[in-house]
Amino acid sequence: MSLGIIAGGGDLPRAVAESARAAGREVFVIALTGSMTEDWAASFSHEWVSIGSPGQTLKSFRRAGVTEVLLAGKVDRPKFSELKLDAKGIMMLPKVVAAAKKGDDALLRVLVAMFEDEGFRAVGVAEAAPGLVCGEGNLGRLAPNEDHRADLAQAFAIVRALGALDVGQAAVVCEGLALAVEAAEGTDQMIARVAGLREALRGTPEKKRGVLVKALKPTQDAKTDMPVIGVATVERAAAAGLAGIGLEAGGALIVGKEAVAARADALGLFVTGVKP
Amino acid sequence: MSLGIIAGGGDLPRAVAESARAAGREVFVIALTGSMTEDWAASFSHEWVSIGSPGQTLKSFRRAGVTEVLLAGKVDRPKFSELKLDAKGIMMLPKVVAAAKKGDDALLRVLVAMFEDEGFRAVGVAEAAPGLVCGEGNLGRLAPNEDHRADLAQAFAIVRALGALDVGQAAVVCEGLALAVEAAEGTDQMIARVAGLREALRGTPEKKRGVLVKALKPTQDAKTDMPVIGVATVERAAAAGLAGIGLEAGGALIVGKEAVAARADALGLFVTGVKP
Repeated sequence: MSLGIIAGGGDLPRAVAESARAAGREVFVIALTGSMTEDWAASFSHEWVSIGSPGQTLKSFRRAGVTEVLLAGKVDRPKFSELKLDAKGIMMLPKVVAAAKKGDDALLRVLVAMFEDEGFRAVGVAEAAPGLVCGEGNLGRLAPNEDHRADLAQAFAIVRALGALDVGQAAVVCEGLALAVEAAEGTDQMIARVAGLREALRGTPEKKRGVLVKALKPTQDAKTDMPVIGVATVERAAAAGLAGIGLEAGGALIVGKEAVAARADALGLFVTGVKP
Repeated sequence: MSLGIIAGGGDLPRAVAESARAAGREVFVIALTGSMTEDWAASFSHEWVSIGSPGQTLKSFRRAGVTEVLLAGKVDRPKFSELKLDAKGIMMLPKVVAAAKKGDDALLRVLVAMFEDEGFRAVGVAEAAPGLVCGEGNLGRLAPNEDHRADLAQAFAIVRALGALDVGQAAVVCEGLALAVEAAEGTDQMIARVAGLREALRGTPEKKRGVLVKALKPTQDAKTDMPVIGVATVERAAAAGLAGIGLEAGGALIVGKEAVAARADALGLFVTGVKP
């Protein structure tokens, strides 16, 4: 009942691996060459594998007794022309190239389907590392006030409407005005954009206003695509003058809950989980 | 039955004034100091007025026999502390400051309401200058193909969903993927953002893909807020690698139809009006 983690970049894969190990599970890590930049895998059974070699990954998983597979972290889109492919990779390539054009969601779905076809069970972060899942209520010391709660409700409504149309998973609302909505650019760039708006519409790091909401698209698979925040998200939100961050309780992940709470407290933001 | 035009920046006010005069109407122009940068008003009965002096505007309109009033063009948000106010301006200020915080839509609604309270009839561009309204079908030589039509339908669905939540009036969709959605940053910045996405997701000026759609928010007043495009919009869309622009027939304005058609033809984009 070993858990196989295919690990890309960012803090999420390590957080998942550590959380699963702490819960008593055997963990085997496939570190994706070029995507996983920090070498944290050394303390786990692991192997470095190119994204072009899914055959090698399958073999390593079987040898390690892996039954459940989890994909986590950012994967840098490879240049297909430069990719060293194993036999399985060559078989998968047409599907992968077609999916890659449609964006990360589609690409992930193809990879998950491949592992399921090979007899593995695909699991999500919420199942493998329940400690990362956002709970209900405030993570740090601060709580949203009444204005913030109204902005949170409005931002959730926007994100759900957008999600139903497969647009994005985040939005920023400030005192009744939608400041920014995420599409293909991603959450980080959307947050950064807020700071470029005229000051009458937004807050500043000194006088914070407005909220960021991040929620799962109904079209997304909770196994691979749950919204994630971490310390960097809190810092970006603070730099953009936001008063806080709202997540769906049970529907989002927080990497490093204690560190996130401490940073939010230090910067004067709330981080809150709202029952859907 | 003279038409009073309160003119801010951009090409729209001049296009409205010329179109109304061509249709045989008397036109009186209030040129807003600081907002109207190009001095095209000289060929009309006109007066330069500060945005802080609505009393002067009312007086000039009455003297000129104006019965209908139209606001058009971009108004630079004044620094209220530096504003020279007349008596009417002082009376209006609290309302205006409160509305300005909510954004341009709210500010315009306050100004329109003031003129209506004073006995003028507020008219929209579509009524005063019907020649600017987007018709059905293609403006230039090019037409959307089947893929573009699917993207147009998806973008209209997104803009309508966003509009119902008072978010924005424009979106970019490319082969089924929502690339960018407008909120407080405005259409120009949203278009520019598309060029910053990774090339797999978007077109290029050489190989155009994806469409821009601009449509009226249901929460907006067609008198003041109809979406407008012009030659610059076509140029921005081309620079962002888009294949074309879709507007609601009867629900959007095109400044300089002939010039827009010629530029779209030259740059290889379609501009099309779609029956809602």
